[in-house]
Amino acid sequence: MRDFSRGPEHLAINQATTKGWSLEQAIEGYARHGVRGIAVWRDKLAELGLARAADMLKVHDMTVTGICRAGLLPEAEGGWPAARDDNKRAIDEAAALGARCLIVVAGGLPKGSKDLAGAQAAVIDGLAGLLEHARAAKVALALEPLHPMFAADRACVNTLSHANDLCDALGPGIGVAVDVYHVWWDPNLEREIARAGAAKRLLAFHVCDWLVPTTDLLLDRGMMGDGVIDIRKIRGWMEAAGYNGMCEAEIFSARNWWQRPCDEVVRTCVERHRTVV
Amino acid sequence: MRDFSRGPEHLAINQATTKGWSLEQAIEGYARHGVRGIAVWRDKLAELGLARAADMLKVHDMTVTGICRAGLLPEAEGGWPAARDDNKRAIDEAAALGARCLIVVAGGLPKGSKDLAGAQAAVIDGLAGLLEHARAAKVALALEPLHPMFAADRACVNTLSHANDLCDALGPGIGVAVDVYHVWWDPNLEREIARAGAAKRLLAFHVCDWLVPTTDLLLDRGMMGDGVIDIRKIRGWMEAAGYNGMCEAEIFSARNWWQRPCDEVVRTCVERHRTVV
Repeated sequence: MRDFSRGPEHLAINQATTKGWSLEQAIEGYARHGVRGIAVWRDKLAELGLARAADMLKVHDMTVTGICRAGLLPEAEGGWPAARDDNKRAIDEAAALGARCLIVVAGGLPKGSKDLAGAQAAVIDGLAGLLEHARAAKVALALEPLHPMFAADRACVNTLSHANDLCDALGPGIGVAVDVYHVWWDPNLEREIARAGAAKRLLAFHVCDWLVPTTDLLLDRGMMGDGVIDIRKIRGWMEAAGYNGMCEAEIFSARNWWQRPCDEVVRTCVERHRTVV
Repeated sequence: MRDFSRGPEHLAINQATTKGWSLEQAIEGYARHGVRGIAVWRDKLAELGLARAADMLKVHDMTVTGICRAGLLPEAEGGWPAARDDNKRAIDEAAALGARCLIVVAGGLPKGSKDLAGAQAAVIDGLAGLLEHARAAKVALALEPLHPMFAADRACVNTLSHANDLCDALGPGIGVAVDVYHVWWDPNLEREIARAGAAKRLLAFHVCDWLVPTTDLLLDRGMMGDGVIDIRKIRGWMEAAGYNGMCEAEIFSARNWWQRPCDEVVRTCVERHRTVV
């Protein structure tokens, strides 16, 4: 395994972790702490502008580990054409920034529906359409299985096994994003990481922690080391499977980290990256 | 499939659903509404006393669909001997009441531990010990996989597939409890219900609903029909796999149903049992 103890060479930060910062502030802030990787959110990107963002990322020699995000396929408001167009714009943005991948979240049940199998089928169709454009733009799609507690409202793909099955069905151009928060509980995790690695499908690795107790389903993620996830063990599985990209800290934390100065958050990410990731 | 539309013949209620009632009140209350099945919690049973409870259940011709519960194996406070003794008492109570099964919840991570695989191994050992006593007492153990969001603090067995694997390893005397709340999201659910059915392992079927949004991980379950779970579809899978026991309504609902008069809750369970289960 790679030695992370000496510094943040392999650390990326998802800018949702420093919610108070604009994209400009995040790029400069991360760089100030020696962090050379960032995952970019599209709303923040729109504020800064694509050309200016590309410029700043280049000046600071920043790797874009991912663009957040495309997807929400079955329940898209405004129907399929609107969702498809927006997803295509996301692909173009990912291409323009040279992002390692575009994160894709499957989407949950359409409003009023109880048809989970139907939603899952719609995801395959939606991904197939997205993939055509992504291949042409040479952008890798990273399907991110979300925790089963999001099956109803955010993503009906909830295990790495299911994501791998979809990738098998869809062919080249799509891989997976492994976020420890979503998959740490899965008894098949090591096996499915190995399977994804064998198919050259490991596009992103996200870290944070599962707090006990967790007080909110969406916005109560923990800083690495503050919860129960054996992050280093899972990183070991990722690297054994061939992953050599950055480790991206992604922490949605309304009650704790979002309340603190962003510089403190970044400093803590750097420290925990060295000691527990 | 059985026709539930005519009445509550196949309805049981888990007494946690009517938290405000004692066991005595629950038995009488359910019977008043024509409900002939109950799942009993051990703290409420202790208040009434085993002999008196057995007597009342007999008078009201009430099927005990389950005793809640044994388990919490890896992290038991007071260490193994205390947990083992308490679990044995649970088995004896289940035998005395002629319960269809004793619900077993695996337990989560020991305090301070991040060793999920270790906890899962401890569960096998704990179940093996429990099973010896259960076989002697002719009490069926029903291992209930809990939703993955409980992996840290309540149960490190989170899929029916994992529960089936454990049953395979442990041999006769242990089966599974299928609770739609915990397993509805699982793309392998139909297959794993069939697998459990083929092994004569389906001991209990619990129903409630998944609300959108869900505001609390533990205590915000919905009344059948108020959420997104296609309960009837899952019941169809259960019956196709050979399950012909009662359907037990189990609703932990601090903000809604626990605030209402218990008679209203029971009346609503009866109605929803007819219309959506």
